[in-house]
Amino acid sequence: MKLIGTYFSPFSRRVAAALIALGIPYEHDDLNGYKDPERARQLNPVGKVPVLVLDSGEHLIDSAVILDYLDELVGTQRSLVPTAGEARRAMLQLAAISTTIYEQTTARDFEARRTQDCIQPNLIERYRLQTIGGLQALDAASSLQGLIRKAPLNLATISAVVAFEYAQMLHPDLDAAAIAPSLARVVLDLGNEPAFQQTRP
Amino acid sequence: MKLIGTYFSPFSRRVAAALIALGIPYEHDDLNGYKDPERARQLNPVGKVPVLVLDSGEHLIDSAVILDYLDELVGTQRSLVPTAGEARRAMLQLAAISTTIYEQTTARDFEARRTQDCIQPNLIERYRLQTIGGLQALDAASSLQGLIRKAPLNLATISAVVAFEYAQMLHPDLDAAAIAPSLARVVLDLGNEPAFQQTRP
Repeated sequence: MKLIGTYFSPFSRRVAAALIALGIPYEHDDLNGYKDPERARQLNPVGKVPVLVLDSGEHLIDSAVILDYLDELVGTQRSLVPTAGEARRAMLQLAAISTTIYEQTTARDFEARRTQDCIQPNLIERYRLQTIGGLQALDAASSLQGLIRKAPLNLATISAVVAFEYAQMLHPDLDAAAIAPSLARVVLDLGNEPAFQQTRP
Repeated sequence: MKLIGTYFSPFSRRVAAALIALGIPYEHDDLNGYKDPERARQLNPVGKVPVLVLDSGEHLIDSAVILDYLDELVGTQRSLVPTAGEARRAMLQLAAISTTIYEQTTARDFEARRTQDCIQPNLIERYRLQTIGGLQALDAASSLQGLIRKAPLNLATISAVVAFEYAQMLHPDLDAAAIAPSLARVVLDLGNEPAFQQTRP
């Protein structure tokens, strides 16, 4: 199995963290879709990473689809998402909140890099409020009894740790730890976990 | 059940189309998250539509999560996505290509509306190539034998019809029908289907 996608992409990083958490060995190809869009489009019609190349040669695209496949591969006893019901909905929604943080943090970074006259403050503010709302929602789910917790690793926790570290990296002024202190504690507890330690960009 | 989200949002529209295709009655609240971001954030911590309010009062966010729930609700005989294997992967990947077209078409529209000096041509070109690649991939799956076909409706077809009409609406210069003639034929065949006819923005 080969994972294509730089760990600077939180979408790629959460797949890598899931592979490590599930004990699935993989090769890694560090493609950055922004730096080499042509190669990214050759691997994926919409030119994004991650792409997972199965041993059969099949190419899988989209991190949510890849993660759904990994759960099927390892079976219901070890899967990162419950198979049904309210538990499944809660887990997938927390993961979706994290991927929205990935998107809006990236969008905010692109906006902030424009020349001063071109920056749209209303967009920056929209992304900021969406990121804060997302971090608060993840924080509310972060506790020993919550879905975001030290162990066992699940999709909500993996996606949230990656979201937190990504927001910290690209958006330090936001002070993610002040907004989400319980999540910050989980991130700290898991800092040396191979799933995160080996995938840090 | 109440679906919150304007049909101008392709993410909301694909959920509405799925509800109609599955014969699930729903109320509709036409919230536009860009026009009323405060209300959107009250309903969803990351301020996006769609939100599905269940009769129990539970709020479900994220179109992919909502669609996963609807499939569980109707059961495996009627679900819009196969439950496992290569068939499931293929269906989910085609749907993910469509949602990327939603995203990049929206991003391109926002970029194109900036004042002339602020438009970044490299971003416009990136979005254009991603949309073309996505439409070509959907087109290759559009035929009587493909996953994108007139009947029975499945998630790939619903998501693709919405992607095609959204790209046509926001991006007429792209000429989606010329890029994806087989998909255009499926869209034409399904034009009066209630799932699409009743949800057109």
